Amino acid sequence: MSLLVVGSVALDDVETPFGRREGALGGAAVYFGLAASYFTDVRMVAVVGRDFPREHVDLLDERGLDLTGLQVVDGSTFRWGGRYGYDFNARETMFTELNVFADFDPEIPVEYRETPHVFLANIAPALQLGVLEQIEAPRSTALDTMNYWIERTPEELRRVLERVQIVLINDSETRELAQDPNLARAALNVLSMGPRILVVKKGEHGAVTFSNEDAFAVPGLPLETIVDPTGAGDAFAGGFLGYLAATGDFGGEGLRRATIYGSAMGSFCCESFSVDRLASLEPGEIETRFEAFRDLTRFEHVPIFDV
Amino acid sequence: MSLLVVGSVALDDVETPFGRREGALGGAAVYFGLAASYFTDVRMVAVVGRDFPREHVDLLDERGLDLTGLQVVDGSTFRWGGRYGYDFNARETMFTELNVFADFDPEIPVEYRETPHVFLANIAPALQLGVLEQIEAPRSTALDTMNYWIERTPEELRRVLERVQIVLINDSETRELAQDPNLARAALNVLSMGPRILVVKKGEHGAVTFSNEDAFAVPGLPLETIVDPTGAGDAFAGGFLGYLAATGDFGGEGLRRATIYGSAMGSFCCESFSVDRLASLEPGEIETRFEAFRDLTRFEHVPIFDV
Repeated sequence: MSLLVVGSVALDDVETPFGRREGALGGAAVYFGLAASYFTDVRMVAVVGRDFPREHVDLLDERGLDLTGLQVVDGSTFRWGGRYGYDFNARETMFTELNVFADFDPEIPVEYRETPHVFLANIAPALQLGVLEQIEAPRSTALDTMNYWIERTPEELRRVLERVQIVLINDSETRELAQDPNLARAALNVLSMGPRILVVKKGEHGAVTFSNEDAFAVPGLPLETIVDPTGAGDAFAGGFLGYLAATGDFGGEGLRRATIYGSAMGSFCCESFSVDRLASLEPGEIETRFEAFRDLTRFEHVPIFDV
Repeated sequence: MSLLVVGSVALDDVETPFGRREGALGGAAVYFGLAASYFTDVRMVAVVGRDFPREHVDLLDERGLDLTGLQVVDGSTFRWGGRYGYDFNARETMFTELNVFADFDPEIPVEYRETPHVFLANIAPALQLGVLEQIEAPRSTALDTMNYWIERTPEELRRVLERVQIVLINDSETRELAQDPNLARAALNVLSMGPRILVVKKGEHGAVTFSNEDAFAVPGLPLETIVDPTGAGDAFAGGFLGYLAATGDFGGEGLRRATIYGSAMGSFCCESFSVDRLASLEPGEIETRFEAFRDLTRFEHVPIFDV
């Protein structure tokens, strides 16, 4: 079933020890949408300026994304510049030029209003709430957020958390949101704020998916080639929610599989600059990567003590 | 089969947000030895001063450790003081008083010289080499080390790395030793230095066990109660090598199981101050904890794409 994403489309300048790219296609909605596009129909609501290159639109179109909700307005596209050193866990933001994204007030096209699955990428909680009010009876709603909103607009964030089923954030955001340094306790606290499912993204350390009944953890794949980790968290979310939207497999076993598909998409994302790898996968490669996670994590129990 | 550990025995002052302990039983050989004692016979070579409390000796003795190699000499026992804030990943060393440990030159008792399995805890590489020269035809040898030795005595460290089969170090030590920020590449580099097996300990993020043929990763257990993580890495090593010494199960599947037993012992260690939990386990609890890792990590693959 269809999956709607509302979030940023950007032109990124990225520098890593392996090279640099200027004006590359980026933004949360792009990484999410491309990753999810292998699993299900994706509808995108976002805004770009008149400078947004035609080739980027063509790439999204070729991956089958429905761009009815992509507004093109006067002004420049959101631009972000970042730099990574040899430690890919630490990145330095060189500049953030919101441009047309500063006035983004997502209007959901009439033909999107019954979309069953909705992902609110990292935008102001008030805008996330506004999107939810435009969707009729969604089957699932999910959001990402960041420390900026946790600190600046805590009340709006609490209101939107009460209304979504799934939250995907990183480990430091989980701790900050719950004001608890213990991840397990912090996760339960976040679940008490409304959502049924919390996915804690931990970058190279993998991910943990919590519900009130269960916890599932997957380590990161030890990749020998990491070119650019930008967008990996959004690609994870695209794989996770894309799988769920495609299969409706929201039970415990399905959430585990979704976490692996998310991890697979996040790992592909790191293997190239921008969306190069993410936009050019063969679907079979996704299953092969899923199996790489199985090979990495499988073990048999042969008890040696009496229980 | 018997497992020999050579390393520190200490009296620790530890402060965490949950309380403080003074003069608590600690040291790498203690944490390692207690964890391993559930799996196999453990022999300890270490040094303490005349101030070392009788009750600590009794505790080690009650867990069945062979203390023939525990020297008691004039002077004070090694003392370490550390403090943890709410972020247990960062600890502050308040003081280190080597005392009798400063002149530690491990002499292996004659009755230990044919011990089949040997663990060299974190001591000077020259001392580790000296121990190996006193052991006759061991079946397996393993070591831990730290950034201090990687930086100060790189040549001695290289010589001992050429002679051991198993290395257990943390992720930053792996990167520093290999001078490569990419963990997967760094691991292969460390394996090229001599050992057949590298276990990368990642604290709350779990562990990855590398050989030239395989990689196995396990996430950390999301513990709601972490009281004091001191010694968790040594407890991990004790569970890992204790299992291998007990079973001789050095194949790929055995290394995976050993990694889980190591993770289990590390997780118990964090649940109390000092060795309180580690010294008082029922063996059945270890299998139950093993199963908790299975519950945390298991998933089934139901492919949705053609490969």
